[in-house]
Amino acid sequence: MDIGFIGLGGMGSAMALNALKAGHSVRVWNRSPGAAKALADEGATVVDSPDEAFAGDAVFSMLADDAALRAVFIDSGLLKRAPKGLVHANMATISVPLCEELAGLHAHHGVAYVAAPVLGRTDVAVAGKLNIVAAGADDAIDRLQPVFDVIGQKTWRVGATPQHANVFKLAANFMLASAIETTSEAASLMTGYGIDPHAFLDVISNTLFPGPVYQGYGRMIADNRYEPALFKARLGLKDVSLALAAGDAVNVALPVGSLVRDNLIEVLAHGDGDKDFAALGKVAARRAGRKV
Amino acid sequence: MDIGFIGLGGMGSAMALNALKAGHSVRVWNRSPGAAKALADEGATVVDSPDEAFAGDAVFSMLADDAALRAVFIDSGLLKRAPKGLVHANMATISVPLCEELAGLHAHHGVAYVAAPVLGRTDVAVAGKLNIVAAGADDAIDRLQPVFDVIGQKTWRVGATPQHANVFKLAANFMLASAIETTSEAASLMTGYGIDPHAFLDVISNTLFPGPVYQGYGRMIADNRYEPALFKARLGLKDVSLALAAGDAVNVALPVGSLVRDNLIEVLAHGDGDKDFAALGKVAARRAGRKV
Amino acid sequence: MDIGFIGLGGMGSAMALNALKAGHSVRVWNRSPGAAKALADEGATVVDSPDEAFAGDAVFSMLADDAALRAVFIDSGLLKRAPKGLVHANMATISVPLCEELAGLHAHHGVAYVAAPVLGRTDVAVAGKLNIVAAGADDAIDRLQPVFDVIGQKTWRVGATPQHANVFKLAANFMLASAIETTSEAASLMTGYGIDPHAFLDVISNTLFPGPVYQGYGRMIADNRYEPALFKARLGLKDVSLALAAGDAVNVALPVGSLVRDNLIEVLAHGDGDKDFAALGKVAARRAGRKV
Amino acid sequence: MDIGFIGLGGMGSAMALNALKAGHSVRVWNRSPGAAKALADEGATVVDSPDEAFAGDAVFSMLADDAALRAVFIDSGLLKRAPKGLVHANMATISVPLCEELAGLHAHHGVAYVAAPVLGRTDVAVAGKLNIVAAGADDAIDRLQPVFDVIGQKTWRVGATPQHANVFKLAANFMLASAIETTSEAASLMTGYGIDPHAFLDVISNTLFPGPVYQGYGRMIADNRYEPALFKARLGLKDVSLALAAGDAVNVALPVGSLVRDNLIEVLAHGDGDKDFAALGKVAARRAGRKV
Repeated sequence: MDIGFIGLGGMGSAMALNALKAGHSVRVWNRSPGAAKALADEGATVVDSPDEAFAGDAVFSMLADDAALRAVFIDSGLLKRAPKGLVHANMATISVPLCEELAGLHAHHGVAYVAAPVLGRTDVAVAGKLNIVAAGADDAIDRLQPVFDVIGQKTWRVGATPQHANVFKLAANFMLASAIETTSEAASLMTGYGIDPHAFLDVISNTLFPGPVYQGYGRMIADNRYEPALFKARLGLKDVSLALAAGDAVNVALPVGSLVRDNLIEVLAHGDGDKDFAALGKVAARRAGRKV
Repeated sequence: MDIGFIGLGGMGSAMALNALKAGHSVRVWNRSPGAAKALADEGATVVDSPDEAFAGDAVFSMLADDAALRAVFIDSGLLKRAPKGLVHANMATISVPLCEELAGLHAHHGVAYVAAPVLGRTDVAVAGKLNIVAAGADDAIDRLQPVFDVIGQKTWRVGATPQHANVFKLAANFMLASAIETTSEAASLMTGYGIDPHAFLDVISNTLFPGPVYQGYGRMIADNRYEPALFKARLGLKDVSLALAAGDAVNVALPVGSLVRDNLIEVLAHGDGDKDFAALGKVAARRAGRKV
Repeated sequence: MDIGFIGLGGMGSAMALNALKAGHSVRVWNRSPGAAKALADEGATVVDSPDEAFAGDAVFSMLADDAALRAVFIDSGLLKRAPKGLVHANMATISVPLCEELAGLHAHHGVAYVAAPVLGRTDVAVAGKLNIVAAGADDAIDRLQPVFDVIGQKTWRVGATPQHANVFKLAANFMLASAIETTSEAASLMTGYGIDPHAFLDVISNTLFPGPVYQGYGRMIADNRYEPALFKARLGLKDVSLALAAGDAVNVALPVGSLVRDNLIEVLAHGDGDKDFAALGKVAARRAGRKV
Repeated sequence: MDIGFIGLGGMGSAMALNALKAGHSVRVWNRSPGAAKALADEGATVVDSPDEAFAGDAVFSMLADDAALRAVFIDSGLLKRAPKGLVHANMATISVPLCEELAGLHAHHGVAYVAAPVLGRTDVAVAGKLNIVAAGADDAIDRLQPVFDVIGQKTWRVGATPQHANVFKLAANFMLASAIETTSEAASLMTGYGIDPHAFLDVISNTLFPGPVYQGYGRMIADNRYEPALFKARLGLKDVSLALAAGDAVNVALPVGSLVRDNLIEVLAHGDGDKDFAALGKVAARRAGRKV
């Protein structure tokens, strides 16, 4: 396929690279040019404007946040100039209202819009093992599927309403935040009794709570080591705040989310916003009176 | 081995039965005689007093709560009359202070004490697939191991201090409570957006959160069906309260635990204490204004 | 003085009327004309545009929320056309970032800006007994003082940085929300023991907690009667959310605020957003299993 | 009147002294003799056992906690030996279940029991300005009233069921804890904006929140000075925990209470349990990343 790729951070670059390796023809654009150059070495065509990337059989974007998306796709007027019939897979984690707004604007300008946020961090993206949560018209997703198949291990189709995929993603990250917080509190309890938290996490992650979350984040908490960050605490706070806002819009409170949000604010207050999401473990330890 | 078994609720009966089936000679005692009779049909010797069960190569107990343990082992004077050198595996989920007290009394009376709470509900006990978290003297656990091997799929030895096993168990149930609460909130968010929570839980439990907890409790929440109870909400509240008390004793707060405790009180206030632990899902739904 | 008044809801009308009664010449403008007519009967000059009101010796505004302020003062271009040297007292409860933005724009266009939110509801405004929290240049506040003196019982000058007055106001409403929530929980505890909450509130409000808040809101909670609303729950939620956002901006969590926010969302989820702020009492009662 | 006084801590001594000064004949007993001697200098008769104090027209007790009360009144057998028809005013803050138990035992042994916890700290007790919350038989309270009148500024009669007075007291201290926590969070928000919290508290305590609580505790928080302790944080935690337990018994959650409890545990974890209750202010400041 002839595809465009907009947004080449760690996640975007990894996805674009996997598309290249699978033989797709990829035009890439990024605000700052460094990342694009690295992909050029792998065969990507670097273009000078998002408009040039927003063409071909399909376009994929992975921008940082609502503001970046608004700048590139709305304020720039790009959508007005876009070729009719194109399909755009927006893989970023964004707010529900922006997703609704983008879906409406794409429809207005004759571009198919698929919300396709992903589960997995950079290492998973590099391995091409992401889980893609996709929502939009089925035929639009069909057209994206060959690329999704090399980017991810599985595409979860969750209906025709794009923002539903964003609700899935925000809820998933909310659950992730809760698991990290809970593990932090449990680890702190262990330390309070003079028990090595590694021993506890070994039992837990091999019995009730298998899988990557409790094991991976649990190890960082037990090791009390939060660098290098695989997913920064400040991005975790952003996502939890978006989940709370998503709930607010439909009168659903997420009390555990509120609690974690407050603790993530404490993480930032102590200068740890660029440490890993697991730095919630420092909050639990600090509150229990331990040196962190 | 020649063993005694004290306390024949659903969990205790299943464990005693597996010991019988493996060829061990089992004397059983229960406060109410019904459960003992069922085991007699399988070859158990029913005895009339806990003293008669507290003998042989080893004794296992699985009583309901602190009060029952206090009545049978302390107030009755049983330990004073116990044969020296016996080993006792207390498999119940009890408070940390009672565990300490029992460990001390056993030592005083020359009986080896192993705290061996289990992870898993009745269905797991029936299948002989429990995870046993054991703490106490290694040689005492060695003597229990042949029976542990037929009761459980694995014995996790977590040190020589008996109450540490209880801290493990309480922390595990606290984490379980948090996972149920979080899943309830996420499911409520889905419903708020008109999304079937089953679809969300399908994604989650096949990606970030595999394992029995999110899948099993998640299904009850998505089905909005909390009977029959596999683990009653009031017992969940008991265990979360014990975890909070365990934290309190070492100046470690468990804020997620406090939040879940308050929601479990709401479960009881609405007459759902005998429904499943997953009835936290009703609280989330009710708070979001839905009929429950 | 020759003053303009923009925004004639219950609060604004009451303030404008008190200014009229004190002999000031008042030009009034409101988006919907009804309220202005009532003031015309009392001697106000009704004008057709906010520009006409934004003139004279000083102008006072009391608009509903950030969106209304943005529409009237920023998007309309009004500030660009405003007479240099005018002083504007913005008495509305708004977000901290908007206050900063407005302060900057006013300075840019040569208009003095004073943030002057008020403590007190409509009944207090009618009585001219508001407490005015004013921040801005001292000489600007001096010019407003003759009108402040007939609108309020006291002007609290809290410095030269306008947004500080907004932080005061948001923090005050956060504290109000906390007091209502706490009183709701205490009243629910009383009911749980078969104690009339009125008796408890009588003791409390005559000993530890005198003043209008515990007495006034306490009575609504004890009466379980939340209409007519003196301050609507949805406005309370708006203000608590603004307080949380204000904290977020400086990495200060307000955990009690988060908790109250979640309960206010429950108020809205149950269709009670237009009932009084005290409807938090219904949440506490509902959660305790009582008919509400 | 001829009265006995049991328990001579700061509160008890002050009350006994006021009774003495009003001309009552007072026999005093305390576990450690020092406090009794000081009262002897003022005319009290020091007795060697609680039995000797538990006699005369009426007896008042002010012991530290449930354990002390259980030791003196129940385990000692004192009630069995008490003169029939005596009236006992228990002025301590105790748990609801112990109050019920004591009321039952007193009735069984023919002693009238009045629960009469007080609002006010030592300075208020010294001034004879306590608010006494009394529950029990009216004629029993009538007999105590002459002493209550010199100990307190007002007696609030709240019914015939003794434990109701304890529920009042625990709810009052819960509300106090909430007010301190809320003030701490608001003060932290001020500091985050570079605003002197004293200025904010000056406005608040002279407008919405008059009275001793916000003013007195607020000053300690704004001063960031928590010694000398007028009411120790660890006692505050004890009372909040009793309030939560009181709610638990009737299925009423106190979510703000749970939150404050967790923060008070943080106070203790940092070695500040003997500082003033207002040390919750340190928690809010620490969590916001400030040196405390």
